[in-house]
Amino acid sequence: MTRERVYLFDTTLRDGAQTTGVDFSLDDKRAIATLLDRLGIDYVEGGYPGANPLDTTFFSEKRTKNAKFTAFGMTKRAGRSVSNDTGVSALLEAQADAICFVAKSWDYHVRVALETTLDENLAGIRDSVEAACARGREVIVDCEHFFDGYKANPDYALSCAKTAYEAGARWVVLCDTNGGTLPHEVTQIVETVTAVVPGAHLGIHAHDDCGCAVANSLAAVEAGARHVQGTLNGLGERCGNANLITLIGALKLKDAYASRFDLGVADEALGGLTHVSRQVDEILNRQPNRHAPFVGASAFATKAGIHASAVLKDPRTYEHVEPEVVGNLRKVLVSDQGGQSNILAELKRCGFSLEKGDPRIGRVLDEVKRKEAEGFAFEGADASFYVLVKRMLGEVPAFFDVERFSVNVERRYNAMGELVTASEAIVKVRVGDEVLISAAEGNGPVNALDVALRKDLGKYQHLIQDLELVDYKVRIYQGGSDAVTRVLIEFADASGDRWTTIGVSANIIDASFQALTDSMIYKLLKSGAML
Amino acid sequence: MTRERVYLFDTTLRDGAQTTGVDFSLDDKRAIATLLDRLGIDYVEGGYPGANPLDTTFFSEKRTKNAKFTAFGMTKRAGRSVSNDTGVSALLEAQADAICFVAKSWDYHVRVALETTLDENLAGIRDSVEAACARGREVIVDCEHFFDGYKANPDYALSCAKTAYEAGARWVVLCDTNGGTLPHEVTQIVETVTAVVPGAHLGIHAHDDCGCAVANSLAAVEAGARHVQGTLNGLGERCGNANLITLIGALKLKDAYASRFDLGVADEALGGLTHVSRQVDEILNRQPNRHAPFVGASAFATKAGIHASAVLKDPRTYEHVEPEVVGNLRKVLVSDQGGQSNILAELKRCGFSLEKGDPRIGRVLDEVKRKEAEGFAFEGADASFYVLVKRMLGEVPAFFDVERFSVNVERRYNAMGELVTASEAIVKVRVGDEVLISAAEGNGPVNALDVALRKDLGKYQHLIQDLELVDYKVRIYQGGSDAVTRVLIEFADASGDRWTTIGVSANIIDASFQALTDSMIYKLLKSGAML
Repeated sequence: MTRERVYLFDTTLRDGAQTTGVDFSLDDKRAIATLLDRLGIDYVEGGYPGANPLDTTFFSEKRTKNAKFTAFGMTKRAGRSVSNDTGVSALLEAQADAICFVAKSWDYHVRVALETTLDENLAGIRDSVEAACARGREVIVDCEHFFDGYKANPDYALSCAKTAYEAGARWVVLCDTNGGTLPHEVTQIVETVTAVVPGAHLGIHAHDDCGCAVANSLAAVEAGARHVQGTLNGLGERCGNANLITLIGALKLKDAYASRFDLGVADEALGGLTHVSRQVDEILNRQPNRHAPFVGASAFATKAGIHASAVLKDPRTYEHVEPEVVGNLRKVLVSDQGGQSNILAELKRCGFSLEKGDPRIGRVLDEVKRKEAEGFAFEGADASFYVLVKRMLGEVPAFFDVERFSVNVERRYNAMGELVTASEAIVKVRVGDEVLISAAEGNGPVNALDVALRKDLGKYQHLIQDLELVDYKVRIYQGGSDAVTRVLIEFADASGDRWTTIGVSANIIDASFQALTDSMIYKLLKSGAML
Repeated sequence: MTRERVYLFDTTLRDGAQTTGVDFSLDDKRAIATLLDRLGIDYVEGGYPGANPLDTTFFSEKRTKNAKFTAFGMTKRAGRSVSNDTGVSALLEAQADAICFVAKSWDYHVRVALETTLDENLAGIRDSVEAACARGREVIVDCEHFFDGYKANPDYALSCAKTAYEAGARWVVLCDTNGGTLPHEVTQIVETVTAVVPGAHLGIHAHDDCGCAVANSLAAVEAGARHVQGTLNGLGERCGNANLITLIGALKLKDAYASRFDLGVADEALGGLTHVSRQVDEILNRQPNRHAPFVGASAFATKAGIHASAVLKDPRTYEHVEPEVVGNLRKVLVSDQGGQSNILAELKRCGFSLEKGDPRIGRVLDEVKRKEAEGFAFEGADASFYVLVKRMLGEVPAFFDVERFSVNVERRYNAMGELVTASEAIVKVRVGDEVLISAAEGNGPVNALDVALRKDLGKYQHLIQDLELVDYKVRIYQGGSDAVTRVLIEFADASGDRWTTIGVSANIIDASFQALTDSMIYKLLKSGAML
């Protein structure tokens, strides 16, 4: 059976720019366009030239090599010709391979938002599409609110789609702008539309307001559409757009689709899917979603003891696809629910080459269980687990020894009568034969301690210079009869690596200190530091 | 047209416990069971009695009033009778209204994981269901890996479902354990199963590994199933389970479902949906997902631009449902009716009798928005909200004023050569004309500060004597450009009342101090203390 081609259209740089808290710079846009181009996306929508200076600049040159670089904008306004419409002119001037026009297709919107007639709106669609085709651009028409429009006035919605297609649009895209349409409705409506616009020219643009954006996109493909719009990691206004990363995983890896459809994304590029997803979060300084399908850090993580042993027997028992094909990792969580098989898998993942039956595995398990009884939880603290195992194997040199620290926080009225809180820390550390004392102020006791600890580590100082604390979490945990404080600290370094360490103590400062020093030791081990 | 009842089954406390980083305490379990019960969930699966001491304790009494409290466990093992199976015995001993058995329905798993025969497995299902029915329990059977099993050996998968149903199970639940099944496959397979088990006895249990858990659940309902399993906020192993919060929103609010189906969730409880979702995250110290359908902080947020002005003209233009009905807020209109009515509801809930139209409501709303911009989150800190409102109404007397505090933590080797960490605090407080200085040691800086603060409060001392700190949580929050620390502290008093307060500052000790003093003021107000 010949497989049909499904085309992917990314709108991260346009619709994704509507995400709360996301603000692209020109560099961000360039970097993301490159990621998309390499991944094998067919259309990269770069923005809305003419709407703001950044997007106009971005379209001063073509930003992709293989993907069709696409400019977004509105169809011409009522009451003026295409050549007199500055919006359409900006689109035609843009250095783009394709133009994506957004067109109203809900009669209510035409009247209320555009304040024009239904016929004028159709004329605007036709004239704009024809003008762009005449300039040699490939044309895509996003029919805004198509599904709501179809429910309100099916004839009018269909005539918008038909007008766009007959005027020469390569793709007519049905947009669920409010994200309120349900999968079974998408199936019915897309099937109906194929009578007017052939499926080979139909696209879908879904939002996640009902948690169904991916399913709605797949339903449209099942119903005949061959063009899917979405964003990396599902960025977008409100609940976000359809997540292209998830869609690529599903369309490439699930037999039901892979046997029928082809994508522009090659198998090799698929192996970089996890990397692309995390890279985007990195660029935007967002916390990656651990639970994201296919690419999340926990997407292939197993906690339960029974599941874990089955996964080790045969991964297919609890995995629907292999993590490696998307560049992700299988992870069997170290936790009080796990046994030997969990630990063995975890040791392998962390790069330890212990074989089944090695008595050291049992000792590591005992130590992990002992620590967990105290309140430690290594499933979220890989780096502390790594340091613990290295220490048990006698592979952690005595880099430094903190002989004493003291932290003080004081809140008082200053001379100006203002209430101020000051924090400072003093740390005395021995590095080889050197004894070093450092003091520091910070915006809190942990920050002061962190700064003082890393102020002078003698000969190791250059190796920990680029450490940056990126997250800090605390939770009280009932360990046995007494409450203990569990601190998780995430660090990053200049290479972009991130790792988490844990500390547990009745004393929050003590627990933080353990996590801080674990992190420094991890970084020194990773840097290959020697005594 | 009569609407059919769809039953909701929550497994947050069982399958949700498999989430990376989630570790329930007994108190967490109790609190979440209460939230679910009030929301109107039909079945609350509390855990796996017999599998670990916590779950066994949790099933020592019934934890729900209206919902059917449900115990989870395996069907009897091969080669022994039900009465000799300790697992089944633990289930029958549990104080539960219903028992949910997990049963293998994929022939491959029966052979590889259970290492038994296909017939033995069917006998195990039948005997276990019959034994539980004989003990007066309602029985649910989760057919593990049903969809993969069906694809591999449809006859065997169907005979597992049929056996469970004929043995007396109220519900036979088709589980997509690996989360790899696609919506169109769910539709086809569930339709086939209804020939063997009537839809009125069929359920669905979906995982989100393809980003389709919600859509798969809805597809099963469309195909005839009337029982849906899921978790709050989609907690669960790997990519999580079907998100019950999203499903409740869709089934209650989307016409296509609301016109055909009824839930146990009343309209009034629906208004608390956002609160329930955030409350769970607070309990588990997780960052709420801003983009979550229906309940996310950004779910109804519109960035300035064309959409925003349309939303201002008529919210229906870009909103598929009204945020107020799920207790959420529209984010573009700062002082809109939605915000006002939300605050009004919250004020009523806290016992304030302000009437609609009172100008003080707008002032409270502004103050709450200002504080939230700083990083405060009153969702989980009722007592701080109460104190804030009382203060704005001029109803908080100046009970005491902390003029200065100082906290010190020191870690050093003592005379015995042991590493010790000591914490102490000094507090100077003015109570009326009295100036009182107290010092205290503690097992950490917050404990020392708490003890010193409450050591001598002069004439109010007897009123705060019975306070006990029962929980303490910290999270870093990106407030604007700088990170702030958010502290939540829960106190209890001798009457059994519990309340939570919040503090926010760059400095963790400062934030803790705010939460501690809010809690003392709350207790004094509650005790009716006067100046």
